[in-house]
Parts: sequence; structure tokens; C-alpha cells
Amino acid sequence: MRATYMYGAGDVRVIDAPDPAIEHSTDAIVRVVRSCVCGSDLHPYHNMREVPAGRSMGHEFVGVVEELGSDVRTVRRGDFVIAPFAWSDGTCEFCLEGLQTSCRHGGVWNAGDVRGGQAEAVRVPLADGTLVAVPVEEDSPLIPSLLTLSDVYGTGYHAAVKARVTADTSVTVIGDGAVGLMTVLSAKQLGAQQIILMGRHKDRTDLGREFGATDVVSARGEEGVALVRELTRGDGSHVVIEAVGHMPAYEQAIGVVRPGGVISRVGVPQYGSAPVGFGSLFGPNVTLTGGLAPARAYIDTLLPGVMDGSVNPGKVFDREIPLDAIADGYRAMDERQALKVLVRP
Amino acid sequence: MRATYMYGAGDVRVIDAPDPAIEHSTDAIVRVVRSCVCGSDLHPYHNMREVPAGRSMGHEFVGVVEELGSDVRTVRRGDFVIAPFAWSDGTCEFCLEGLQTSCRHGGVWNAGDVRGGQAEAVRVPLADGTLVAVPVEEDSPLIPSLLTLSDVYGTGYHAAVKARVTADTSVTVIGDGAVGLMTVLSAKQLGAQQIILMGRHKDRTDLGREFGATDVVSARGEEGVALVRELTRGDGSHVVIEAVGHMPAYEQAIGVVRPGGVISRVGVPQYGSAPVGFGSLFGPNVTLTGGLAPARAYIDTLLPGVMDGSVNPGKVFDREIPLDAIADGYRAMDERQALKVLVRP
Repeated sequence: MRATYMYGAGDVRVIDAPDPAIEHSTDAIVRVVRSCVCGSDLHPYHNMREVPAGRSMGHEFVGVVEELGSDVRTVRRGDFVIAPFAWSDGTCEFCLEGLQTSCRHGGVWNAGDVRGGQAEAVRVPLADGTLVAVPVEEDSPLIPSLLTLSDVYGTGYHAAVKARVTADTSVTVIGDGAVGLMTVLSAKQLGAQQIILMGRHKDRTDLGREFGATDVVSARGEEGVALVRELTRGDGSHVVIEAVGHMPAYEQAIGVVRPGGVISRVGVPQYGSAPVGFGSLFGPNVTLTGGLAPARAYIDTLLPGVMDGSVNPGKVFDREIPLDAIADGYRAMDERQALKVLVRP
Repeated sequence: MRATYMYGAGDVRVIDAPDPAIEHSTDAIVRVVRSCVCGSDLHPYHNMREVPAGRSMGHEFVGVVEELGSDVRTVRRGDFVIAPFAWSDGTCEFCLEGLQTSCRHGGVWNAGDVRGGQAEAVRVPLADGTLVAVPVEEDSPLIPSLLTLSDVYGTGYHAAVKARVTADTSVTVIGDGAVGLMTVLSAKQLGAQQIILMGRHKDRTDLGREFGATDVVSARGEEGVALVRELTRGDGSHVVIEAVGHMPAYEQAIGVVRPGGVISRVGVPQYGSAPVGFGSLFGPNVTLTGGLAPARAYIDTLLPGVMDGSVNPGKVFDREIPLDAIADGYRAMDERQALKVLVRP
């Protein structure tokens, strides 16, 4: 089959790789219908060291079940399925608590002998706990929105849930990438009345307004902080979602959060340490939360809105390319020519 | 009057200072009945740079109202009062939300022209918002426990409340100082079934057991972390309270917290930055909360238990000294000969 590998920063290739096969009785083989490129894929695209054997890529995909191990019970051959970005048993304490990213027996794609979704097919471990079957055909117009449930929509929702967004909380979202926009949509769904989106790309912030942003601040750094404070009576906002992962975004979050408020991070942090001392978090009683989103936990909650068309998170995809052209997709996202690229094997 | 000033690390003196006087119509003058030395006073005791004019000290005191500004309504001359460690108007949004440490018009003792509680008397700004009158005589045996409501009991309770301790959360408390022990008591009051106290001083951890600790771990670092993990089925505890403020305690907290859990800090951090990246907080979805405790917010909740004797937080005081000997009190606490020193002007 054809599959995407990265060999170092900026070096993405589609190669012939062995077809996946059932290895354990709890596995399923899924033929990929659509996958995509994630903002987090751009981190290794910028700084991955050269690896001669390459690293398989992709952690978001939807597809059709082609083969099943003998112990799989909840999905059948021919089912259309969503695969969240971590695989999990669905039965351990952590899974039952909705923290599938800490599953006792789970893992992530592209680690160990589990390969990635930017390919023609994937071996899915622990298929019962991982996959969610959805009654749609593989040419359904809902597919882009269903694909966001693999990661970005669930990740945005996680940010808002961990921050305990309600109708009484003002929200500032830092970052107008797909996750930032999904957070805007999620905050709106949870009832937030004021949603300030900090982002510099008008086409993206326009989509953010469509998803529910009430204000857009395009300035960054001190100027951006001052503008958000103006919009929040000088106090800052109850909730700040950091959907970027770089230190300037973290510092901006400290700058715009209200005393007693919450910073919820879902941008994968590209730093190890950060300010948490008296002046930043401790003195004003700011809570730092968020983390790697258990996308699986939110599919049941978010699926109905996608199925009935009341939300359309698939609008974050503004380009579709064939798998063999995926290097162009990475480049387009890296150069901010595309917001999020849908990939068709 | 006699008052305590610090002139540099290790240099604490009791001097003759001007008597406090009403400066604003919302002030009260309180004659101090008891004050005490705080674990956080030991931070400047270790590292304060020399200041020729000295810095007034003390932020915990109870006393009797001696004089009132013309606009004070809620306390009267002769009232016995508790002064929490921040003064606040009691009427702004932050105060109404229970975050008096972020009061729009408030502040802390020993800043600007507001002096401290390790003295014979104190000018209390915004007396209506700050002071809580309690119907006791000034020789009541309840006074040590009432004094803990100035800071350490409210601080311990804040740690537990911010971490959302319930009957379903296991709790680990790092630090067997007065705040750590008050956190144990608070976690117990909020229903925690397992409370692991990490501390090395047997007399203190014995008191911790009396307050509700179910387990004591005296080892620190990796060994301590391993022991706490053994006590929590290998997972770590849902809630970790960091009641020290130094980096090794923060690192220990990262080591013993369960995925999806909460680290709540009430030890004043003696560091600016700390690990918050993928491996520490983000990957396992650990929340970092806590902060400067709004002690005023908890007095109404905690006072009844003190008054009816069902709790006895005053047991953290294991030594009483006259004001003129306060330098000995600092030394005794610094050398861990005393847990917490009560000061009698």
C-alpha cells in the first residue's frame, strides 16, 4: 500500500509500505477513506532530526472496516468508522473515566509497530475500544465533519470542558488554527456569551466568527493583551484557551487571563518549562489545565450535532489532495496557504 | 509601640515604632492579642537583602478593636476580631466571588504604609471587608485555633477546595509544616478517604494522623514517589497538595499525581518557572491549581467547627513566646525545633 513517512524536517514522502495485517485477535484493518494533516504534524516538519528508516505519519482518519480479529465485537466488516487519535481498550478505569489517552493498554498511532493514518490502510489495535461505527456511506458529505471527531473537534471540546466553560464564563481563544476554531465552536456550544478569538488570518477568523467568536483580536504580544483587556473591562477573561503550543502563546495567555481564571492548553507544548510562579499563576490564583485530548471520550457527545447538521466543523478543511500529493499538503499548511488539508488515498 | 522588623536575612528585631493611627474613615486600630510566625516568613529570613530601614513583619493576628474610622459599620470598639492575611473591601466583584486576595481596593500587610501583625497594634484598612468579629473573650482557649483562620487553616482549606477534594479523591499532601497539616484536616473535612502525608518530622506527622492522615511517607525524591505509588495501586493520587514552595516539592508532586489529577499549590513558590510540558503536565492531563489563599473567604465556613470544638487547628502551635523574644521564635521555626510559634505582645 501507499503510506506517508517523514524522514526529517521538511522531508515527507509517500512510499510503498507493507499492507497491514491482523496481528492480534482484537485488531481491525481499516481501509482509509479520508485522512488529513494536523497542525501538530508541523512540529516534526519543522524540527525532526533525520531518520533513515523514516517515521510513519497521520493520526486522524475515517474509513471502512475490511478485516477483523476473532475477538472484535462492536464493529463489523463494511462498517464506516471514526478512529480517534489514540487507541484504547475502552474498559480500564481511565477509559471509563473518559481519559482514554491514559488507557492502561492503549497507545498512539506511529509508535512501536502501530502505523499511521496518512496511508491507504491501518491496523487498529483494540478495535472495540477505539473505533466508533457511524451509519454513513463513504461518499457522504458529512465525512469532513466526521473526520474532525478524530482529533481537532474533540481537542477543542476538551479544552473548553477542562476549562469548565459555561454561559457565565468569558472565553479568549489564542490561535486561529483548526483546533483554535474548534474551541470557538465548542465554547459556543457550552454557552459562552463572549468568545474573543486571537488570530491574524482573516479567512480563518471569519470562519471563527461563523463558529461563534464575538470578537477578533489580530494583534499579538503586549498590544494584543491590551486589546483583550479592553474587551473584558480591564480584568482579562475567565477562560483562556491556548491552542498553539509555543511559548509566546503561553505568555499571551498569562497576559489575558482574569484573576481566579483558567488557562486551558491543547496546543502540544514545544517547551518543557514555563512561568508558573507568584507573578504569573500563583498570586492571581490562575489554574493551568488541559492536555492531550481523549478525543474518543467526546465522540458520543459531539456526533449527534454532526449527523443532524446543526454544526459543520468540517469547514476547517479548505483543501483536498490525493495521498500521493501529501507533501504539497504539508507545505501548504506550513506556509499558511491552507488551514487544514483533507487527504484522499 | 513594640513591633517586629526584619533588616536582612536572619536579622529580626523588635523595635519601638510609632503607634498606628486612623488615617482613613474605613480604618480600624486593632490591639493585637496574639500573632504568630508563618512558614512563609522564613523565606525572607533566608534570603532577604539588607534593608537599612527594615521591613515590618507579620500577617496573622487576632485582637481587640480599639479605635474606628467614622465609616466602619460591621465591627465595634471592644470586639474581638480575626484579621485574614489580606485586607479587602468585601464589596467588589472579586470579593463577592470569594477571591479577596484579588480585591480591587485591597492589599496585604507590610506593603506600602500598612504595617504588620507581629506588633502591639495594627492599622487595619477597609475594616468592614477585612475583620471578622467573634464572640469570645481575649483569654479564651479557642484563641490559637481562631488565629489559624488568619492564614494557615484557610490556606490549607483553599488548597483542598481548589483541588475539588471529595470522598472520591485520594489525596497526597507534600509538606508537614502548619499549612500541610491544615490541608490534611481540610481534606478530611471534605470527605477524603485516603490522605497520604509526606513529611519527615515524626511529631508533625503524628499530629497529621490526628488531623486525618491515613498514611505517612517520610522518604523524599524518587523513593518517596515510589512509596506513594505503592499506596495508590501504582497510579498516583487524584489530588496532590504542594504545601512547601520549593522546586523539589513541585517535582515530587509531578511524580505522585495520577493521570487526569490535580496538583494544588499553596506553598509560596520560590521559583519562577517549572516543568509544565508534555512529560510533566500536558501528556497526562494534570491540572495545576491553587495560589494565594483568600483566607477571608473561608472564615465563615470554618468558624463554626472551631467555635464548637469539633476541630482544633490551634494544635499546630507548639510554642508561645513574648513579642520581645520573637527572634528566638524565628530561629526555632527555622531550625525545626518549633512547628509554629504563637506570639504574645
